[in-house]
Amino acid sequence: MNISNFIMLFLAILLFFSPYGFAEGKISKETQTCLGCHEIVTPGIVKDWKNSTHSIKSYVGCAECHITKNTSRPDSYEHNGFRIHTIVTPYDCARCHPEEAEQYSKNLMAYAYGNLVNNKLYRDLMNTINGVYKIEKKGYSIKSVTPLTEEDSCLSCHGTRIEIEGLKNKETYFGNMKLPVIKGWPNTGVGRINPDGSKGSCSACHTRHSFSTDIARTPESCSRCHKGPDVPAYKVYSVSKHGKIYHSRKQNAPTCATCHISQINVNGQVILKRTHQVSDRLPHRLFGVPYATAHPKSPDTTIARNKAGLPLFSELTGQPVTEYLIDENEQKVRLNRMKSVCSICHATSFIDRHFERLDESIKTTNEMTVQATKLLLSAWEKGVANNKDGLFNETIENLWVEQWLFYANSVRLASAMGGADLGVFENGRWNLSRNIQKMSDWIKFLERQKKNRK
Amino acid sequence: MNISNFIMLFLAILLFFSPYGFAEGKISKETQTCLGCHEIVTPGIVKDWKNSTHSIKSYVGCAECHITKNTSRPDSYEHNGFRIHTIVTPYDCARCHPEEAEQYSKNLMAYAYGNLVNNKLYRDLMNTINGVYKIEKKGYSIKSVTPLTEEDSCLSCHGTRIEIEGLKNKETYFGNMKLPVIKGWPNTGVGRINPDGSKGSCSACHTRHSFSTDIARTPESCSRCHKGPDVPAYKVYSVSKHGKIYHSRKQNAPTCATCHISQINVNGQVILKRTHQVSDRLPHRLFGVPYATAHPKSPDTTIARNKAGLPLFSELTGQPVTEYLIDENEQKVRLNRMKSVCSICHATSFIDRHFERLDESIKTTNEMTVQATKLLLSAWEKGVANNKDGLFNETIENLWVEQWLFYANSVRLASAMGGADLGVFENGRWNLSRNIQKMSDWIKFLERQKKNRK
Amino acid sequence: MNISNFIMLFLAILLFFSPYGFAEGKISKETQTCLGCHEIVTPGIVKDWKNSTHSIKSYVGCAECHITKNTSRPDSYEHNGFRIHTIVTPYDCARCHPEEAEQYSKNLMAYAYGNLVNNKLYRDLMNTINGVYKIEKKGYSIKSVTPLTEEDSCLSCHGTRIEIEGLKNKETYFGNMKLPVIKGWPNTGVGRINPDGSKGSCSACHTRHSFSTDIARTPESCSRCHKGPDVPAYKVYSVSKHGKIYHSRKQNAPTCATCHISQINVNGQVILKRTHQVSDRLPHRLFGVPYATAHPKSPDTTIARNKAGLPLFSELTGQPVTEYLIDENEQKVRLNRMKSVCSICHATSFIDRHFERLDESIKTTNEMTVQATKLLLSAWEKGVANNKDGLFNETIENLWVEQWLFYANSVRLASAMGGADLGVFENGRWNLSRNIQKMSDWIKFLERQKKNRK
Repeated sequence: MNISNFIMLFLAILLFFSPYGFAEGKISKETQTCLGCHEIVTPGIVKDWKNSTHSIKSYVGCAECHITKNTSRPDSYEHNGFRIHTIVTPYDCARCHPEEAEQYSKNLMAYAYGNLVNNKLYRDLMNTINGVYKIEKKGYSIKSVTPLTEEDSCLSCHGTRIEIEGLKNKETYFGNMKLPVIKGWPNTGVGRINPDGSKGSCSACHTRHSFSTDIARTPESCSRCHKGPDVPAYKVYSVSKHGKIYHSRKQNAPTCATCHISQINVNGQVILKRTHQVSDRLPHRLFGVPYATAHPKSPDTTIARNKAGLPLFSELTGQPVTEYLIDENEQKVRLNRMKSVCSICHATSFIDRHFERLDESIKTTNEMTVQATKLLLSAWEKGVANNKDGLFNETIENLWVEQWLFYANSVRLASAMGGADLGVFENGRWNLSRNIQKMSDWIKFLERQKKNRK
Repeated sequence: MNISNFIMLFLAILLFFSPYGFAEGKISKETQTCLGCHEIVTPGIVKDWKNSTHSIKSYVGCAECHITKNTSRPDSYEHNGFRIHTIVTPYDCARCHPEEAEQYSKNLMAYAYGNLVNNKLYRDLMNTINGVYKIEKKGYSIKSVTPLTEEDSCLSCHGTRIEIEGLKNKETYFGNMKLPVIKGWPNTGVGRINPDGSKGSCSACHTRHSFSTDIARTPESCSRCHKGPDVPAYKVYSVSKHGKIYHSRKQNAPTCATCHISQINVNGQVILKRTHQVSDRLPHRLFGVPYATAHPKSPDTTIARNKAGLPLFSELTGQPVTEYLIDENEQKVRLNRMKSVCSICHATSFIDRHFERLDESIKTTNEMTVQATKLLLSAWEKGVANNKDGLFNETIENLWVEQWLFYANSVRLASAMGGADLGVFENGRWNLSRNIQKMSDWIKFLERQKKNRK
Repeated sequence: MNISNFIMLFLAILLFFSPYGFAEGKISKETQTCLGCHEIVTPGIVKDWKNSTHSIKSYVGCAECHITKNTSRPDSYEHNGFRIHTIVTPYDCARCHPEEAEQYSKNLMAYAYGNLVNNKLYRDLMNTINGVYKIEKKGYSIKSVTPLTEEDSCLSCHGTRIEIEGLKNKETYFGNMKLPVIKGWPNTGVGRINPDGSKGSCSACHTRHSFSTDIARTPESCSRCHKGPDVPAYKVYSVSKHGKIYHSRKQNAPTCATCHISQINVNGQVILKRTHQVSDRLPHRLFGVPYATAHPKSPDTTIARNKAGLPLFSELTGQPVTEYLIDENEQKVRLNRMKSVCSICHATSFIDRHFERLDESIKTTNEMTVQATKLLLSAWEKGVANNKDGLFNETIENLWVEQWLFYANSVRLASAMGGADLGVFENGRWNLSRNIQKMSDWIKFLERQKKNRK
């Protein structure tokens, strides 16, 4: 090989890896028109897209996703000669990714908006959290919560309801334009209610405009909504063996996606298919409100009613309302799916004992919540707290919420993922026990004060 | 190309990338003298420097920064035939980087030392935090705080006051030497008071002796002082969309520096200049003590006085003391600078609604602090707490501090950076509301006890 | 060089870097037999091993570690014609790594199991934390803790006691097999009690089956057990200057291992040997239960008794029980080892002042614990709390535990590693002081109530 050949080879390799060396020709004319302006006004997303698989391999560009096919969509509008929509929804993505969209539509997360705001109890809790308080002569009142606050709080992860308010003239770099005013936007919540009736936002994980599977697969992708004390999955993962391998090596490490979503191949054979319905591999719903139970049958959790008529999957005594929950057989099927992932690296004895520990953890944390509930009920009964004025507005009531929402949930996640360091002292068993003592001491205290008053 | 040519090319490429292959010749004789010993006694920093841009591209070495030009500096001393100083200050850096030093000198951070220790209220808070308590018959007293503790606590980030106590003989690897005894050293706090009168420490971000811009630009650089619950900027960033991209890709991600400091180019044109005066792009000071307000005009915040004579930018009612704060026009200028960064990737409707949410968040968190203040004032009024013996030494007073210092600040940062997961349950809105209940319950409780006593 | 040579060179380079290109021939026949099945049933660990130094450079495979040499081991069993054991212990590793195993056997961590469960006080604390509570008419009782829970909580890091219960038929991919039932498994705790009498698990840090030194050296390796609020070493490190360099550059950064374990070379000379006995470089044990003291002489901490007969290294007054602790000379030797690491990058004045600050921090945090202890004792004395029914089951008692376990420990770690941001407001000095106020207010409150009752 002489030097000129060598240089040509080098250039060819460079070109091969170049993000848009060869692709440009196949990009649609519509997209090229979009790019003409948007390379100037939003160069960042154009750059992200240019480096994306969409651009390099599939020639899927702006037009392919943003030009409205179903022109009855209420959020469709005229824009420089095209009928487009700002918000790309799972229905748009389904044109190329029908299986993923179909699976996701049955995912619990797709219902995250309605499951929150259409459950009376959760609504009350939301208002208590997001409301602005007003101190009054006796106690306080809570002002109603503005949409701006909700969008910036719970609905940031759960998703907003997107609604089109109309078009408005706006001054832009390219002159005056009619652009839509959209309620609930921006938002990439997993259960977003879209103008076309679809639920969710693929870009919640597949960050626009790279739509990178690599990014979506990182634990950091999940951490956006799973780091706070209510669902500290990412924090627990980080102190697990799996997380340690991931954080030190980045590659060849089991991630959230590996166990919960990805396809598993062994020696060239598919032993487990990829799923975007994450509960496929989950026998239990560890997130207990207030108790962990078998997984709900339907992703729409608003339909549940316990004997007391509350929209919950268990009685206050901890007994599950089985009619809404998957049965033992289905639990076994799902557990076996998860175990087949574990078995890539772990022997049966290892795996079995792991899940025995998790079962014990579910049992004991539920029991610790039962005891906290007993204390709460006794406080109401003894008249040292009041359940008539709301369930979430007194110290004892909120200690109760913290028992299951933070402590029991954290312990269960720590058991499930082997991140014990965050299951003991960081919102873990220490807190679960200490909180029982705190509630008990506080009630004793209020009782004595009541007696002294007489 | 024959094989020997190929090998030579290979070697040439190696040499080209070698950190000091060609550079050594241009390094000053003085620096070479320094290196002679320091390669033996502090090889780690020599290695860092050798791999630095200073060494490779600019031939700026030990001597260029540590040899004293202005020999009236009180920290200058004889060292093996050179007059040198240990602590390199912004004035030293300004010899090559005058613009950066000039900008930084007007940065709020440059005043971090004085703004803390010369504000009577903050001083009180510092003493309550750092003091050693002594339980006595009735309550407790607080022993005065040693410099060692302050250096190791607040002043670690805020900066110490560096003072030279004189020279002292020390045994070293190269025999006995006269070396300075320096009060407040080591320290790389952002508002360090240097012996030459300059403020701050460039190495706070540009870690010595690599002085790497790359390191300074990472979010982890900021996290050294912005991770605790008073300013959890790094934690919020980590669960934002921007942080997710950064943590999964490391490159091509918007970092703290991107939005707050870096120069922004679009299609080869500078649309925003780099700034080391970070408030240039900030209409508000989100860090509220106790209320978030428009940004102060002067980086010296000790000059503020509210109507009650307190060194604060707002009344206790929440009303801002406008004479010390930038006006609406200036706020708009700064907001537009920030928006121009956003516009690289986001459309106007996206950006506008984002900042509307932030405005709402500032309003509601301030209001929640107003309510907490009302409760505190009522506790003092009712005689169940005492404001005569200090403002920060009773449970109810510290619940009040946590309301603004931890919860309101966290919520505002979460809104500003789109990290809602840490704005709800992790020192967020949940805590903001629960704390009002706690304060209210606690006061009710103390009142009843007082009545019972009678 | 003609093109075919070039291609061959390329292939040769590929082969050179291939994990098992040349090595396969040297892998033992026994290991090859193991691989025959395990590439099918546990392909993940086979892949990890194939990329490991064990596989590539040393030809140490399954058989070399899992085939039982000492056949009297109770956990040895027949498996497809081999006598093997599931759990590889430090005695197994010692065959090739005798020095490391010997050092580790004297490491405090090797005793982490016994030091916890054989200390009456710690046992009580464990039960209070892990027990399931039962609310009764007056107060509550605590049910005894199951092994499943302990394995999933404290013992996950401290290590379990491994015991063989016998063999059991299990259905596997390759038909029915007799496999051992192992109590306490899975576990990789640092103080695991192994069937062969050895202590610990090398894979706690050297994650199987890559056994990578690189992984073991990352701070994330330590973080598995050192992130919670009782020993937040990783969190503190992350906001230190060292952590900042590590997190932004990953390489050339001082890690936990660098300072505590690794060999230190300067200009080709070993100035400090590698150690697996981590206290070699530690004059103090910063982890105070309840007080920080000089390091214990013996890694078996159950032997300590203070004057009151409690298994602690200090009196409740804070005075150390010196007979069990290393003396000042030994402290100096260890401190100088650590300082020699610091001196790679830092000058004497820098280092000395750093350790002065740490000394002050030890002194003041111990003093803050003394004051909390005074409050606790006074509560018991005044009859507003009860030390007869357990030391860890009332609010005031647990506030006391948090004083030293979370706050004092966190502050000391923050001082030791220069991570001040987590030594102030995140379980730091703020909490240390606020907790004194809380305890004091709570006791005052209980006292008044008691008086009112009379």
